Amino acid sequence: MKTVRVAGVGLTHFGSAPDRTGRDLFAEAAQRAFDDAGVARSDVDELNYGNFMGADAERQSHQAPIMADAAGIHCPATRYELACASAGVAVRAAVRTIRSGAADVILAGGMERMTNLSTPAATDALSIAADSLFEVRAGITFPGAYALMAQAYFDSFGGDREDLAHIAVKNHKNAVPNEYAQYQREITVGQVLDAPQVASPLGLFDACPITDGASAIVLVSDSYATENDIDAPVTISGTGQGSDRAALSEREHMAQTPAATAAAEMAYAEAGVTPDDVDVAEVHDCFTIAEVLALESIGFYEPGAGIGAAARGETTADSDRPINLSGGLKAKGHPVGATGGSQIAEMTRLLRGDHPNSNHVSDAEIGLTHNAGGTVASAVVHILEVDK
Amino acid sequence: MKTVRVAGVGLTHFGSAPDRTGRDLFAEAAQRAFDDAGVARSDVDELNYGNFMGADAERQSHQAPIMADAAGIHCPATRYELACASAGVAVRAAVRTIRSGAADVILAGGMERMTNLSTPAATDALSIAADSLFEVRAGITFPGAYALMAQAYFDSFGGDREDLAHIAVKNHKNAVPNEYAQYQREITVGQVLDAPQVASPLGLFDACPITDGASAIVLVSDSYATENDIDAPVTISGTGQGSDRAALSEREHMAQTPAATAAAEMAYAEAGVTPDDVDVAEVHDCFTIAEVLALESIGFYEPGAGIGAAARGETTADSDRPINLSGGLKAKGHPVGATGGSQIAEMTRLLRGDHPNSNHVSDAEIGLTHNAGGTVASAVVHILEVDK
Repeated sequence: MKTVRVAGVGLTHFGSAPDRTGRDLFAEAAQRAFDDAGVARSDVDELNYGNFMGADAERQSHQAPIMADAAGIHCPATRYELACASAGVAVRAAVRTIRSGAADVILAGGMERMTNLSTPAATDALSIAADSLFEVRAGITFPGAYALMAQAYFDSFGGDREDLAHIAVKNHKNAVPNEYAQYQREITVGQVLDAPQVASPLGLFDACPITDGASAIVLVSDSYATENDIDAPVTISGTGQGSDRAALSEREHMAQTPAATAAAEMAYAEAGVTPDDVDVAEVHDCFTIAEVLALESIGFYEPGAGIGAAARGETTADSDRPINLSGGLKAKGHPVGATGGSQIAEMTRLLRGDHPNSNHVSDAEIGLTHNAGGTVASAVVHILEVDK
Repeated sequence: MKTVRVAGVGLTHFGSAPDRTGRDLFAEAAQRAFDDAGVARSDVDELNYGNFMGADAERQSHQAPIMADAAGIHCPATRYELACASAGVAVRAAVRTIRSGAADVILAGGMERMTNLSTPAATDALSIAADSLFEVRAGITFPGAYALMAQAYFDSFGGDREDLAHIAVKNHKNAVPNEYAQYQREITVGQVLDAPQVASPLGLFDACPITDGASAIVLVSDSYATENDIDAPVTISGTGQGSDRAALSEREHMAQTPAATAAAEMAYAEAGVTPDDVDVAEVHDCFTIAEVLALESIGFYEPGAGIGAAARGETTADSDRPINLSGGLKAKGHPVGATGGSQIAEMTRLLRGDHPNSNHVSDAEIGLTHNAGGTVASAVVHILEVDK
């Protein structure tokens, strides 16, 4: 089995790009990734591309060949769709293909354009990542679904809105130096608590924004990197995926996400590491409660014990294991089909030492990314390691 | 590298299923595939699922975990989208994963619900497999796009509507005994030529129908089949994929499909066979002209030489190398996200000897499937072989 290395990563600025098309965004991310990698476009064997709502946002499906063209590569191109975990599973497929020896160089990533839709239209477009028959028809959209999960968590384990507010505050603070982040500004616990309520118990600052953006990662085999003298100190040593029933009502527990646990266990086993070995993580905080569920699902905390982590300073930038140093989905932004690739890009920069927040994790050797789809009906977890 | 075997296949009847949901359809196909395979659902490692227009047809994206649940399996589930080649690339990914040793049992296939949309709405939903910026805005939908390709073919190489009519007649005749086919009835050349024109030079009977349907394939490793005493005489010995620019205007030749040629060359090389070795094929005849382009792209005919094949009786059921014995997309039907899996299912039945048309290919050892997306901006080709 071949070792998979991250040769280069590229991101667009996350935010609102009203005068740019999806192909503009992905082309920019790909350009940055190739520049970072020093890999020739002509060496790319495949494109693995994630997108969720192109049919709604740009009336463009079948985006994979279009994005290959935009990226300037000529190779088989495939779209992966797993709601907000679309780019995560695109990266995972690339890792497995390179490991198998079937390809040496794969461009993986994703793109989402969202801000060209009105907020109601974007909310509607996002809602079909939930179960249309049993949730959407009942009026559930994602803020409502995560609000139900938050309330179920509070009821089962305790915790309150202030605990969640500390997560938003932490992630906004992390985003300040990140040049790709949508919100490079701090917020306070008071602001979070006083913000308009979206779906009780969640307020406006408990939710990630609507975002345009793209991510691109050049993944290569170890042998390709050696032969072509490519500097690629970060490896992806573990990849895992899990699925669950889409509808919350079909789950055993509304405040636990076993699909992510399955994904994490698979990734840990492949990498030969345990949760305690992980030095830094990017997790899928589409809502503040989602960060809590993520940390518990991947084994950083027991169920019910993760709620106070940010308030206690256990996940902040200066803690032993910082969470979402990029700013997370909450403050960096969440172009849904690009997010899984963005997490890999940010973790690569953090581990290589060229992220604005790398100073907080200068000794880090092992990083984890956790990317979720829907209310974690899908989850993809990766383990990244840096040569030291 | 492990050998990949087709343990079982399942299809729904193709046609109009107004009172059934997409999950109903996929569940039925999966049930049939498991019954055919004799494989326990609990042994399934992954679901690779193809769907194209669920966001439009059922307002349901993120279908993969929902379809895993419908199929009664609990495993990582991923949606592949490559327009009308969605299930083809889902099967291809399964083949590569099993070969690599990362999984032993994968359920692959797809589903599309289309007839619940009006014809204009379905045409609109399908159109976004073309280039939205450079084709759809100019008024191009797929009948128009393939009409342009047909006219370009006639202009470059000759041929006429009657040549195309023979393809429709042949495929309808093949569909008569196929219990899964949408149209189990014959048509005549005169009917095709007299049918209402859809987009000159193509008429109504040059086009495949709008269809509801699902396909499911249980793929297993050779070692799993042996250890579990699974009777699976058909192997997938070659898989290939190609991509091209989405917009016809960006192509060098409007009447050639190099993405399919790239896919075929890859598949032939893997299987160690040539076009002359292929005994029977299922190709993507979404329009009659598409069958001509397909046969030329996969090396059965030189460019310009495939147009008269059906009229000359070189591709009919009683010929040396029958094409589309299932009835093809034209007469069997084309639930777009399921079609690539349906082709694998039909070819498996043909090679095993349990297809109603197997009598026409009783000596066949090698079959080919050709699945295309858009105007062949994407293509997936598989080579299947049967133990004799």
